[in-house]
Amino acid sequence: MPLDVIFLGTAGATPTVERNPPAVMIKREDEMMLFDCGEGTQRQMMKARTGMFLDRIYITHFHADHFLGIPGMIQTLAFQGREKPLEIVGPEGTENLIKAMAALGANTPSFNINLKEVVPGQTIDYGDYKINVIKADHGRKIQSLAYVLQEKERPGRFNREKAIDLGVQPGPDFGKLQKGQTVNVEDRTIKPEMVLGPPRRGRKIVYTGDTRPNEKIRSASKKADLLIHDGTFTSKDKTRAIETKHTTAIEAASIAKKADVEMLALTHLSSRYSKNYLPLLKEAKRIFQNTIVPRDLTELRIPFPEKNRDIEVKGL
Amino acid sequence: MPLDVIFLGTAGATPTVERNPPAVMIKREDEMMLFDCGEGTQRQMMKARTGMFLDRIYITHFHADHFLGIPGMIQTLAFQGREKPLEIVGPEGTENLIKAMAALGANTPSFNINLKEVVPGQTIDYGDYKINVIKADHGRKIQSLAYVLQEKERPGRFNREKAIDLGVQPGPDFGKLQKGQTVNVEDRTIKPEMVLGPPRRGRKIVYTGDTRPNEKIRSASKKADLLIHDGTFTSKDKTRAIETKHTTAIEAASIAKKADVEMLALTHLSSRYSKNYLPLLKEAKRIFQNTIVPRDLTELRIPFPEKNRDIEVKGL
Repeated sequence: MPLDVIFLGTAGATPTVERNPPAVMIKREDEMMLFDCGEGTQRQMMKARTGMFLDRIYITHFHADHFLGIPGMIQTLAFQGREKPLEIVGPEGTENLIKAMAALGANTPSFNINLKEVVPGQTIDYGDYKINVIKADHGRKIQSLAYVLQEKERPGRFNREKAIDLGVQPGPDFGKLQKGQTVNVEDRTIKPEMVLGPPRRGRKIVYTGDTRPNEKIRSASKKADLLIHDGTFTSKDKTRAIETKHTTAIEAASIAKKADVEMLALTHLSSRYSKNYLPLLKEAKRIFQNTIVPRDLTELRIPFPEKNRDIEVKGL
Repeated sequence: MPLDVIFLGTAGATPTVERNPPAVMIKREDEMMLFDCGEGTQRQMMKARTGMFLDRIYITHFHADHFLGIPGMIQTLAFQGREKPLEIVGPEGTENLIKAMAALGANTPSFNINLKEVVPGQTIDYGDYKINVIKADHGRKIQSLAYVLQEKERPGRFNREKAIDLGVQPGPDFGKLQKGQTVNVEDRTIKPEMVLGPPRRGRKIVYTGDTRPNEKIRSASKKADLLIHDGTFTSKDKTRAIETKHTTAIEAASIAKKADVEMLALTHLSSRYSKNYLPLLKEAKRIFQNTIVPRDLTELRIPFPEKNRDIEVKGL
């Protein structure tokens, strides 16, 4: 089951020639989610050829660079005759904000917008995976959230030969065992654990939004496949990072190292690093080697952990 | 004095890979004006390297594709520490709309925003030039405006030799005559009309916004240097043009011909012509030869009419 991450906007508070305001898309099989939706995100989706079948938008916080793409997105989806509801998830105040934005357009959308306000510590369950809401630290004036996409454990690998040795016939009984159900073969009971390997862990992606380095985010990132972290500044600008409640590349790399993640992606770049991001990359790599600084439209494909394959990177 | 037109966004209601939502910039010497400001316009300005010293935004109407770039623009100008006020001109309701948009951002801008609501028939005088407000026809549900930038007449060409023949000494008296003032040479009075050619007409640019073909716009476009007209559809889609209150390329070309303009630029393209705009161009050229279909970032330089030079086109 493909799990793709597409960096649609990697700029900080102001866009640049090279970088659009913040938006990260995660595509999981046929589900499409956006994390933040800065101005121009709909056109970035067109450029990345993601399709426009958006299921959900998660907003981290209410600084304008993180949500101004929403009203235009809603308008375009409506022009396309969309009927499926769109879900928008965000901190307290999301309902008022989206209603105020929807009121700007002269057109009423053709579909429902379901608004969900969430608080840190909350988990939203989507069946195969869940989204954990983590408190980020972007200053006391603003509620800021990080989001963790965590796939649930899948049953262990099915040992076909062992099942046959135990007398199970290939067919429906195989399927039941694979799903974790018990079957009977003549007078014997075959339990799934007799023919399944250990449960296989799901994949995990963390998106911090705007934040200072943060213990809650670090612990939520433990062994994540991908940590997408605020990497606005280099350590040269550390004072500014502290003032504006952002993170330096070294600080983000330290978190990636402590959390033992597979890959770190730095984003929300200050415009001074928009073109030449090497100072950010070099600084982070000294601490955590598997760091990337995605460009707009860089795509990652996250493999299942047990496959032990590298994350595939396109358009870096 | 340079007068440049930069097409920042040439899409219709939905952007495409090739085209951003509507925005046209006019730069006149050191003044910078935007006509409409669709989502992503600030980044188009960066890509066109126009600089960010924006003086004024004119909104034609309140369909979201024409104004959603304003809140992000305001935020970016504020981040740059702007102090000079920004003027925003638009139809009745502009004040409420801009206030609602400004309220979306968590930050208060560092500069004043002067809002000016205008009505059809109104003229705003800026000294060397004026803006005429024309009623467009985008349906009864929405007030839609076209704008005409009209430079005032400049005094005629100064005939230096004739002035010397009349006994005027080169120096301050030359300047006075050039400005249209009378001077005295010994006991004689030299009137400016004695040494000046006929007044030279200023340049004229018309921006229609979204509209059906319209008599008021046609008469306001008389002998314009540039008519930027809604050219959403070809005549094949005429029914749709009538339903959605837009103009076909042929209809726009007929207006250009009747109004005897110098050049016609078709914009607000339906997404079906985003990549291949030749059907629009061919159809219009059959009626009016000097038609262009600008791309995003196409630039025009409009010469003074008496120079009899062609409009210079870059990036077509």
